[in-house]
Order: sequence, then C-alpha cells, then structure tokens
Amino acid sequence: MDREAQAQVGTAGPGPGVRIAAARGAETLDVIRTRGVVRSYTDEPVGDELLDSLLEAMLAAPSASNKQAWAFLAVRAPERVRRLRAFAPGIIGVPPLVLVACVDHARMTGDPHLRDVGSLCVAMAVENFLLAAHAQGLGGCPVSSFLAEPVQLLLGLPGHLEPLLLVPVGRPDQPLQPSPRRAPQEVVRHEYWHPTHPG
Amino acid sequence: MDREAQAQVGTAGPGPGVRIAAARGAETLDVIRTRGVVRSYTDEPVGDELLDSLLEAMLAAPSASNKQAWAFLAVRAPERVRRLRAFAPGIIGVPPLVLVACVDHARMTGDPHLRDVGSLCVAMAVENFLLAAHAQGLGGCPVSSFLAEPVQLLLGLPGHLEPLLLVPVGRPDQPLQPSPRRAPQEVVRHEYWHPTHPG
Repeated sequence: MDREAQAQVGTAGPGPGVRIAAARGAETLDVIRTRGVVRSYTDEPVGDELLDSLLEAMLAAPSASNKQAWAFLAVRAPERVRRLRAFAPGIIGVPPLVLVACVDHARMTGDPHLRDVGSLCVAMAVENFLLAAHAQGLGGCPVSSFLAEPVQLLLGLPGHLEPLLLVPVGRPDQPLQPSPRRAPQEVVRHEYWHPTHPG
Repeated sequence: MDREAQAQVGTAGPGPGVRIAAARGAETLDVIRTRGVVRSYTDEPVGDELLDSLLEAMLAAPSASNKQAWAFLAVRAPERVRRLRAFAPGIIGVPPLVLVACVDHARMTGDPHLRDVGSLCVAMAVENFLLAAHAQGLGGCPVSSFLAEPVQLLLGLPGHLEPLLLVPVGRPDQPLQPSPRRAPQEVVRHEYWHPTHPG
C-alpha cells in the first residue's frame, strides 16, 4: 500500500478546495476507522428513537438477490437481557440492548450456497447496526458464543429463524481501545498473491 | 417500531442544540441508508489514495477473537479484471476495481463454527469497504456468483485462501436505485417473536 497516501487519509480534515462529498466521506471514514469492541456498558438505556435509527441503518445492508432472508429481534427488557446472558458467555457486561440477528431459512431454497450467502448478508446488517451505534456514541460487538436452542426458546423464535449473532450494545463505560491488528501488507495485496510471500 | 421516531430520524439535519456527535452520526446514517447496489460503472479509474482509504476502512471491521482470518486482493489491471469477469457471472458491468475477499483457513482451527464466524467477519469488512466507497461517490456490490477454483488459479491464491466474495467497485454511471424492501415490521420485532405472527 502507498504509505504516503495512507498518511494523508489519516489526517484530520479536508484541505482547501475539497468538495462537500469528500468532506462527508472523511467523516464516515472516521466513524468506520474508530469503531472498536465495547464489552462494558453504563446503565443508560437505549431509547426508541436511537434504536430505530440503528434498525433503519441495519436494514439498508446489501441482500443477496434481495432475498432479505433475515429477521431481527431487539431485546431491552432487563429481565430478558439477563436471561439471554445466561446462555451467551460471549456477552460480558450488562448491556441495555441486545440485538438478536437471525437467518430466515424459510426464505431460502435448500441450496447450502444460498444459506451461506444469507449469513453474510446478516453479518453486513450487523456491521451497519454497529457503525450506526458508534456514530451516535454507543458501542457493542458481535457475539457468536451462545447456545442457539435456549435462545430460540427464550425468545419464541420459530424453527426457521436461526440466531446467528447476538449484538450487545450500550453506552461504553470506558474509552475505546483499538484492537491490535496484523500489518496491512500481510493481509492486503495487489493484482496477484505472490507465492513467494506465504500469507 | 415508533413511526414518529423514525420520521424524525429521516429528517435532513440536526435541530438547534444538537451536539457535534449527533450531527456526525446523522451524516454517517445518511451514508449507510443511501448505499445501494451499483452494477454499471464509468471507466474512471480508482486511484491509489482512494483505494487505500477503502482498504483502511475494510481492515477496521470486527474480527472474532481478533483472529483476522482474512486476506484481500485488489485487482485493477484491466486485463486481469476482464479475466476475473469471465469466471464471475455476478459481475455485470466492467468495473475499474475488483476486491477479492478471502477467508484464511490457515488462521483457523478445524472447528467448523470458527470457519463460519470467520466468513461473517469477512462480510463485515466488505460492508465497510462498500460504505467507504459510497461515502466517496463510488459504488459496487458483493458478488458470490463466481467459480472459486479458476479465480484462485488466476490470482495465484494459495489453497488456504478461499475467495468468499468478489466486490466490483467504480463510479456509478447512473443514479442509485434503492432496492425495494420488506416492511420493517415483517423483519424486526421487539422483546419476543410472537408465534401468532409467523415471520
């Protein structure tokens, strides 16, 4: 990657003559870049208006063949969140909101390829949800460590809705810590994956 | 969902007294909401600086257990894009850039659950890539309709890198058309999935 270009991308604001669209892009890039895992939350609730904005962003995600083979449940009642946590060791703190993101098998054929692609769309919807949360001062993380069957029973999910990810979200109770990451040149290459540099 | 709250979210700008953070959130929400599928592109190339900004956003995606079991190849050489298209009926127009998003099986154990979760992280990274593109006036879409083996051979991908999604991106050559979507109340519920409303 071009280090100089990356340094420019990392600077705070647009220079003179930059178009409005570019300025808007810079802010969105900043939100995407600074999102981080949040596992510990204040007890401030997530209100209806804020939740609706997250759900709207979520449903704008790409959907393969526009099948929208997905379903989402927003859980905020403290007693239900408490029970969910009992089946989800991946939820560490006590969040005011848990999104339950499901694949809807009733909207797929039996083709396992389609099933896999449907899961990818659910993941993209969850990322939209997390970005919309971070943009508004909330944080969370996708959790795959949970027991699907008890969760289905607890939430009255019909058999064709498979919970794929739980997403606890709330106001972070401490500053975001960026996750250490592999060097970009280890995971991104251009044009051809040279066999002399095993990934 | 609360219709009134949603209408407020849909308005253009923050009212008086809204904090900076909220204003920033409104812009990011707008980028997320207005992203759409782009399948037809002008022949304007995607420059290094712009590509780097997309890649940086992409690598900021969540990663389960921070394994980063992913690898990405950015293809811009027109002849290589042309060959890629021959194996990818899902790529309709002629894009100036194709991202090849891969799962890295060398960074997973044999646990099939981890393999699936790794795919979800790649999907979230692709969504970041697409949002960063849309924020800067580009567009694209995730493509799963391609022949993985010829793509691996063409790009010199080692066996442990499985191409999961191809992502053509470029400057849209026509206005974005929003995809028709299922009614939100069909796919989102609160607290409990009532069995009297089959999803």
